[in-house]
Amino acid sequence: MGLLAGLTTTRAIRRYRDEPVPAEALRAILFAATRAPSGSNRQPFRFVVLADGPNADAAKRLVGDAARRIWQTKQHTDGYDRADAEPASPRARLARTMRHYVDTFEQVPVLILPCLVRYREPTLMEGASVYPACQNLLLAARALGYGGALTGFGLAVDAELRALLDVPEGTVIAGAITLGRPAGQHGPVRRRPLAELVYGETWGEAPAWAIDPPGTTFTAAGPPNATETRSVPGPDAGAGTAG
Amino acid sequence: MGLLAGLTTTRAIRRYRDEPVPAEALRAILFAATRAPSGSNRQPFRFVVLADGPNADAAKRLVGDAARRIWQTKQHTDGYDRADAEPASPRARLARTMRHYVDTFEQVPVLILPCLVRYREPTLMEGASVYPACQNLLLAARALGYGGALTGFGLAVDAELRALLDVPEGTVIAGAITLGRPAGQHGPVRRRPLAELVYGETWGEAPAWAIDPPGTTFTAAGPPNATETRSVPGPDAGAGTAG
Repeated sequence: MGLLAGLTTTRAIRRYRDEPVPAEALRAILFAATRAPSGSNRQPFRFVVLADGPNADAAKRLVGDAARRIWQTKQHTDGYDRADAEPASPRARLARTMRHYVDTFEQVPVLILPCLVRYREPTLMEGASVYPACQNLLLAARALGYGGALTGFGLAVDAELRALLDVPEGTVIAGAITLGRPAGQHGPVRRRPLAELVYGETWGEAPAWAIDPPGTTFTAAGPPNATETRSVPGPDAGAGTAG
Repeated sequence: MGLLAGLTTTRAIRRYRDEPVPAEALRAILFAATRAPSGSNRQPFRFVVLADGPNADAAKRLVGDAARRIWQTKQHTDGYDRADAEPASPRARLARTMRHYVDTFEQVPVLILPCLVRYREPTLMEGASVYPACQNLLLAARALGYGGALTGFGLAVDAELRALLDVPEGTVIAGAITLGRPAGQHGPVRRRPLAELVYGETWGEAPAWAIDPPGTTFTAAGPPNATETRSVPGPDAGAGTAG
């Protein structure tokens, strides 16, 4: 898998085969994750890798319960259950995928909690010291035949997770990544047209070169009820949902 | 360049050859950047790509002035100028690289401002909707023979940049990425030992598989004056400094 191809075809994977992720794969994936840059190379990222121990089971149950509660509400508020959805539409597919994801959350092969050790007051840029490492993690998984997704479902049970895993004061849990062997496939992800996301000399004005490659397919921004400009109806079943 | 190899050998590049980045390269790099995941696939990331227009020149000057002011202080407070630094030490090399970076900032071939369109109150996780795209951008540059670095120097002139580029209210500038043809080389990056960054069932306890590959070289966490545990003295000249 080439580097450039990997970047453009790594989808959020939420359906996993019932297979463990071997230690050698986890080592290579976490090694790649920790090669990511961070502010002043402080490497404030930490990864709690929860596969099959008692804490792993308890953590998956905590996040799974939160995920089911949150998705129950979100599918209504975000419009995934809108009556006008064709069963074959990307929106309906994503709704089915998310339902399966939350209903079987306890069976995800590996749950990884990326954490950030704070050394100063929170800033927007502190995310630049943990989320590039999360992206490296998901891309490395792709390189080795695995896949995953970063979700925010765990934030609802932050206190419980911190207590369970002894996460120290001053360290924040920055999300929850599920990882496993994909039941489905990776492939080209769909986004808004490049000219809507990339500007040149001035805000809102795309440079002449901001043209999607031939064959690019597009998708709307966000869930059905999102207010942002949309390119084509329906969300992208293949792209990242942080939950 | 293979995907996994790219993830482990992409360094922060701060010395550039005096070459423009062609439109085809920018298109491929920004296309890859915008394939990154984001929360609910809202794609709230925007990239202002500043190459050689009048606004580009003005923006580079603004960030360059800020960079020189900030580094002037930072090299003392962070200890990069400590008298005990061997001229050949990684710390001394990084200090020279940073000095050259800020002194010649106006000559960086391309300055890219990654932005985040907010749709709700700031949360830690909002960074998960823009920094994975920044990492994709830097990795795609690597794939095409370019290199870059994400810096926070621009935050000091945020108001001036917003005014110059008409960045709308509710949208935040999440950093500044410099991009160009590397004067130096990419190569393996150095980090703390894997067992210091990756835990298993409980915080602080590394799993048995958390072993760095043979030949891995390590580095300290953060600048010389950083308080975090350090593996070997001196920062990593090859790794990311968000500034």
